[in-house]
Amino acid sequence: MLQYKAPVMDMKFLIEDVFKYYKHYEKYPEFAEATPDLVDAILQECAKFCENELLPLNQSGDKEGCKFDNGVVTTPTGFKAAYNKYVEGGWQSLSHPVEHGGQGLPPSLGMAKQEMMGTANWSWAMYPGLSHGAMNTIQSHGTEAQKELYLTRLTEGTWTGTMCLTEPQCGTDLGQVKTKAIPNADGTYDIMGTKIFISAGEHDLTENIIHIVLARLPGAPEGTRGISLFIVPKVQVDQQGNLGESNKVTCGAIEDKMGIKASSTAVLNFDNAKGVLIGPENKGLECMFTFMNTARVGTALQGVCASELAYQNSLLYAKDRLSMRALTGKKFPDKVADPIIVHPDVRKMLMTQKAISEGGRAMVYYTAKIVDEIEMAKTEEARKEADDRLGFITPILKAFLTELGCESASQGMQVFGGHGYIKEWGMEQIVRDVRIATLYEGTTGIQALDLLGRKILLTRGKALNKFSKEVLLFCKDKSMISKNPHKRQMNKFIWALSKNVANWQQYTMRLALRAKKDRDIVGSASVDYLMYSGYIMMGYFWAQMAQTAYEKLATDLENRDFYRAKIKTAEFYFERLLPRTKSLAKTMMADPKTLMQLDEDLLSFL
Amino acid sequence: MLQYKAPVMDMKFLIEDVFKYYKHYEKYPEFAEATPDLVDAILQECAKFCENELLPLNQSGDKEGCKFDNGVVTTPTGFKAAYNKYVEGGWQSLSHPVEHGGQGLPPSLGMAKQEMMGTANWSWAMYPGLSHGAMNTIQSHGTEAQKELYLTRLTEGTWTGTMCLTEPQCGTDLGQVKTKAIPNADGTYDIMGTKIFISAGEHDLTENIIHIVLARLPGAPEGTRGISLFIVPKVQVDQQGNLGESNKVTCGAIEDKMGIKASSTAVLNFDNAKGVLIGPENKGLECMFTFMNTARVGTALQGVCASELAYQNSLLYAKDRLSMRALTGKKFPDKVADPIIVHPDVRKMLMTQKAISEGGRAMVYYTAKIVDEIEMAKTEEARKEADDRLGFITPILKAFLTELGCESASQGMQVFGGHGYIKEWGMEQIVRDVRIATLYEGTTGIQALDLLGRKILLTRGKALNKFSKEVLLFCKDKSMISKNPHKRQMNKFIWALSKNVANWQQYTMRLALRAKKDRDIVGSASVDYLMYSGYIMMGYFWAQMAQTAYEKLATDLENRDFYRAKIKTAEFYFERLLPRTKSLAKTMMADPKTLMQLDEDLLSFL
Repeated sequence: MLQYKAPVMDMKFLIEDVFKYYKHYEKYPEFAEATPDLVDAILQECAKFCENELLPLNQSGDKEGCKFDNGVVTTPTGFKAAYNKYVEGGWQSLSHPVEHGGQGLPPSLGMAKQEMMGTANWSWAMYPGLSHGAMNTIQSHGTEAQKELYLTRLTEGTWTGTMCLTEPQCGTDLGQVKTKAIPNADGTYDIMGTKIFISAGEHDLTENIIHIVLARLPGAPEGTRGISLFIVPKVQVDQQGNLGESNKVTCGAIEDKMGIKASSTAVLNFDNAKGVLIGPENKGLECMFTFMNTARVGTALQGVCASELAYQNSLLYAKDRLSMRALTGKKFPDKVADPIIVHPDVRKMLMTQKAISEGGRAMVYYTAKIVDEIEMAKTEEARKEADDRLGFITPILKAFLTELGCESASQGMQVFGGHGYIKEWGMEQIVRDVRIATLYEGTTGIQALDLLGRKILLTRGKALNKFSKEVLLFCKDKSMISKNPHKRQMNKFIWALSKNVANWQQYTMRLALRAKKDRDIVGSASVDYLMYSGYIMMGYFWAQMAQTAYEKLATDLENRDFYRAKIKTAEFYFERLLPRTKSLAKTMMADPKTLMQLDEDLLSFL
Repeated sequence: MLQYKAPVMDMKFLIEDVFKYYKHYEKYPEFAEATPDLVDAILQECAKFCENELLPLNQSGDKEGCKFDNGVVTTPTGFKAAYNKYVEGGWQSLSHPVEHGGQGLPPSLGMAKQEMMGTANWSWAMYPGLSHGAMNTIQSHGTEAQKELYLTRLTEGTWTGTMCLTEPQCGTDLGQVKTKAIPNADGTYDIMGTKIFISAGEHDLTENIIHIVLARLPGAPEGTRGISLFIVPKVQVDQQGNLGESNKVTCGAIEDKMGIKASSTAVLNFDNAKGVLIGPENKGLECMFTFMNTARVGTALQGVCASELAYQNSLLYAKDRLSMRALTGKKFPDKVADPIIVHPDVRKMLMTQKAISEGGRAMVYYTAKIVDEIEMAKTEEARKEADDRLGFITPILKAFLTELGCESASQGMQVFGGHGYIKEWGMEQIVRDVRIATLYEGTTGIQALDLLGRKILLTRGKALNKFSKEVLLFCKDKSMISKNPHKRQMNKFIWALSKNVANWQQYTMRLALRAKKDRDIVGSASVDYLMYSGYIMMGYFWAQMAQTAYEKLATDLENRDFYRAKIKTAEFYFERLLPRTKSLAKTMMADPKTLMQLDEDLLSFL
C-alpha cells in the first residue's frame, strides 16, 4: 500500500529560505494576506487533505478505473465525495482572483497545493486541474458576461472545465483541426466535430462541464490561422446560470490507457452543440498560447510528484527488506540479513530519486514566482519580460522533469525487485501513471523543438543569455573572490556550474551557426540539447540550495541535519547526475546525417 | 493492433555471414543435420507459426489475463490450442538431445526460435520457456530413471516444468530459503513451504507440471550451503509415467502484475508434497548455477524481442502518421502534412530502436555459439573454458540488453505520441511486458555485482582480458595496417573501438586498485560499469557487422541495400549511442562517499 507524507519541511525551505517568497509577495499588495502564518496553515491543512482523503483513493482508483456506460462516465468510488470536500474546503478557489470568487492568494502557493494533490493522487487531481485551463481562458479572453456566467462557478468548483484541442487526425499539428462552428442568428454557434483525448471530458463529479473548444468558422483561413475558441457547456445555461437542457455534446467512449486510469479521457462528439465565441475570430491558438506555459509547468510538476511518491515508498522498503550482507561486512549481525539500504547500488537508486524530487521541486518553485510576476504585472512590458523568461524555462521544465520523473519512478520500482512489478505495492502504478507526462501537453520532442528552434534560435539566444547571466552572477557572488563566508565549501559547485554554463553558451552558438546551413540540425540536436540544458539548470538550483543550507547551518541549529542532508544531496547531484552532460554534449553535436542518411524504405527488410 | 514479421534476413546475416554458424556446426558431428537448407526451412516455418499463431494472442492475452479460481488457473483464450500446435509441430524438442526425445539440433538454433516466439508473444513463450530450466536440471543432474520418467515428456512438451526458488522473505538472497524436505522411508521426501513468483507454476496447458524445488534437508547447514534440489510433480507419477493422484502442491493465488499478464505467476503451497532428491544433498545452488547463465541469456533476449516489436510498429506508424512539415521544407506537398518520419527527432527514436534490436540480436547470437560449445564440450577443460567466457558475457547481456530493451520499447511508444498510451495500439503493453526483464533472473544491480565483483575482481580480470584481446585482434585485423580491403571505411569504427577497449581495461584496473581499500566502490561503480561495458561490447558487434556488410557489398549484389543500411546503422550507433560511455566513465569512478555519507535516518524529513 502506497504511503505519502507531504514534504512540508522541504517546501518551506524553498518558499522561505531559498526563493524568499515572502519578500517577493511584498511587491504585490494583492498578496498582503499571504503571510507566513496563513501560508503555513494552508500547507498543513492541504497536506492533511491530501494524505487523508486523496492518497487512500490512489490505488483503488487505478484498480477500479472509470466506467463508461452509454455516454455516462462514473468515476471510481470515493472520488465524488473527495471532490465535494475539496470544493467545500475552498481549495479550488485558493489562488484565483477575488473578483470572481477566488481567494486571491498567489499562484505560487497554488503550485504547492497542486504538488501535494498530484503526489497523493494524480488521477484525481486532474479533474480540478483541468478546470484551470478553462478558467484561465475565460479570465484572459472572456467578456464580463462570460466571466460572470462561467468563471465564478468554475472558481468555486461547482462546475469543472476542459480544453478540447486534439482530434483523431491531429494532436501536435493543430492546423489540421476540422471541427466546425456555424454561426446562428442569435449570436451563438453550432459546433460540429469530434474531439479525442479530452481529460475530464465527461465525469460525475459536477452537474456541468464547461468545454473550451477549438473550431473553424465558415471561410476561415486554412491551418493554424483559422482557428477560433468557443465555450460549449455540457448542459445549457440561462443568463442567470440556471441549468437548462442538455447540450448536444456526447461522450462516445473513454480510452483504455496504460495509467491514470481513474482520470477519464473522453472522446467527445459535438453534434450541433450550442457554443459561444470567446476571444477574437481566428485567433484561437494565440489566445491559448497565452497560458500554454502555465499548463506545461503544471505537467512538469507531474514528474516531481511521481518521483517524490516513488522515493518515499522505495526508501521505506529499502530500510525494511532484508537481503544479503553489506560489502564492507555485516551491519545487523542479529538479523538474518542486512536491510538492502546498506548496498551502494540501492543507495544510488534512492539518492537519484531524492536528487530528482528535490531538484525538480526547486525548479518548479523558482518558476512559480515568475508565474506570479506575469499574473500580477502592472505593465505590458513587465508582463512580457517575465513571460519571455517563463517561455524559455517552460519547455526545459516540462520535458526534462517528466523524463526524469519517469526515470525516478522506474528506479523506485527497481528498489523493490520483483515485488515492484506486483500491483499491490503500487510502485508499478507510479511508473504507468507518470508515463503520460512526456506525451501530453506537447511531447518531449515538441518541447525540445520549441526550446531550440523558437526560444533559442529565433531570439538569437536572448533568453538563454539572460538566464546564463543570472547563473554566472550567482557563481560570482558565491565564489572565492566574493565575500561569501561559505565560499570554500561552495567552490566545487561553483566551479562545475560556471564551466557548464560556459559550455552551454558555446555549444548553443555552434548549433546556431550550423543551423544556418542545415536546418535538420535543430531536430537532430533538440532532445539531447534540452536534456543537457536541464541538467545544467538543475545544477544551478542544487548549488543555490547548498548555499542556502550552508547559511542556515549557522543560524538554525535545530534543523542542522536537514541542511547537512541537503548539502550531501547536492554533492551527489554534482558527482552522479550532472556528468550526464558529457555524453549529451557529444551526441547533440553529432552530424544529422547519421539520422537522415538512411532512406525510409531501407529502415527495414521484412 | 500490433504487427510482426520475423526478421529472417537479419537473422541469416548473423547466422551465415557474421558468426558463420555452419562452419562452427561442422566441429560437432551431432549437428550434422543442421545444414543451411534445414535451418532455413526451420526459420521460415517458425516465423509462420509465430506470426500466425502467437502474435494474434498477444494483445488479447494481455487483455484477458490469466484467471484464478480456487487453485485452478485458466490461461487466456487460444493459449492452449497454440500450445498443442507447438507440441505437435515438435518445436519444444528442437534443440534438445536425441536420447530423450529431442531432435538434437544446436542450442544456437533454439535461440533463434526463442527470439521469434518471444517477440510475437513473450507471455505465451514463457510456458514452454520455463520448461527448459527444469529440463536442463534433470539433464545435468538427474539419474537415468529420472531422465526416463520426466525428461522425455518435458522434451516432447507433454508436460511443462518450473523452477521454484523465491519465497516471500527472499528472492536474491536464497540463503534465506525456509522450505523443508523431510525424508520418508521409501526414499521420497515430504516438501513443506511456500514459493512465490513461480512463472508457469500453474496453468491449463498440460496435464502435469514438474516443479524443481529448492528446499532444506533436516540438519542442513544454514545459508546457501544447505540447500538441495527436489523434483516435485503437480500430479504424482508411477514408474511407467502414468498419472496418479494429485500431489499436495496447490496454487494459492496468481499475482496481479504490471505486464506479462497472460503468463501465470503462481504462489505455490507445498503441504507435505511428495518429491525426490535430484543431485547431491546440500549442493542445490551449485547445481542450479550450472545453467543459470543460459537462463539469463534467455532473459537478455527479452530486451531484444521487445525492442524489435516496438521498432517494427513505431516504424509503420512513423511512415503513416501525418503531422507538421519537415524542417527543410515540405516533403509531401500534396498531403495535409508530412509523415512524422521526416522529423529528425522521430528518426532518432527509430534509429535508436533499430540499433538496439540489431545490436542486441548480434550479442545474443554470438553468445549462443558459446552455449553450443559448452553443451557439446568433449572435455571438462573445453567446457570450463567456454563456461568462463559465457560467465563474463552473461551479466552484461542480461542487464544491458534488458535495460536497453526498456528504453527501446519506451521510445517506440513515444513515437506514437498520446496514442502510444492507449492500449489498443499495443505499444504501452510492450513497455509493461518488458519491464519485468530488469527484475527477474537477477536484477540489474545483481548482474552488475556479479560482473564487477565476481567475474572481474575475483578473477583479476582474466575474462575481460580474454575478451578485450579478441576485440583488439579484430581491430588489428581490420585496421589500416592490415590487408583488410575495407580498412579505410572501417577506420572510424576501429579507432573508436580500440580507444574504448583500452579505456575499459584501464578503468577496470583503477577500480580494482580502489576496491582493495574501499569495498563499497564495487557496489557504487557496478551498474554504471556494467552499462559502460555493454556499450563497448555492443560496439564490437556493430563493427563486426559493418565489416561483414562491406565484404558482402562486393559479392551479394542483390542485397546491397541491406548491407548499406547495416553500415549506416553502425555509424548511428558509434555517433549516437556509444558516446554514452563518456558520462558512465565519469560517474562509475565517482567516490562511493556521495552514496554512503548520508546516514539512513537523514534520507528524509517527514
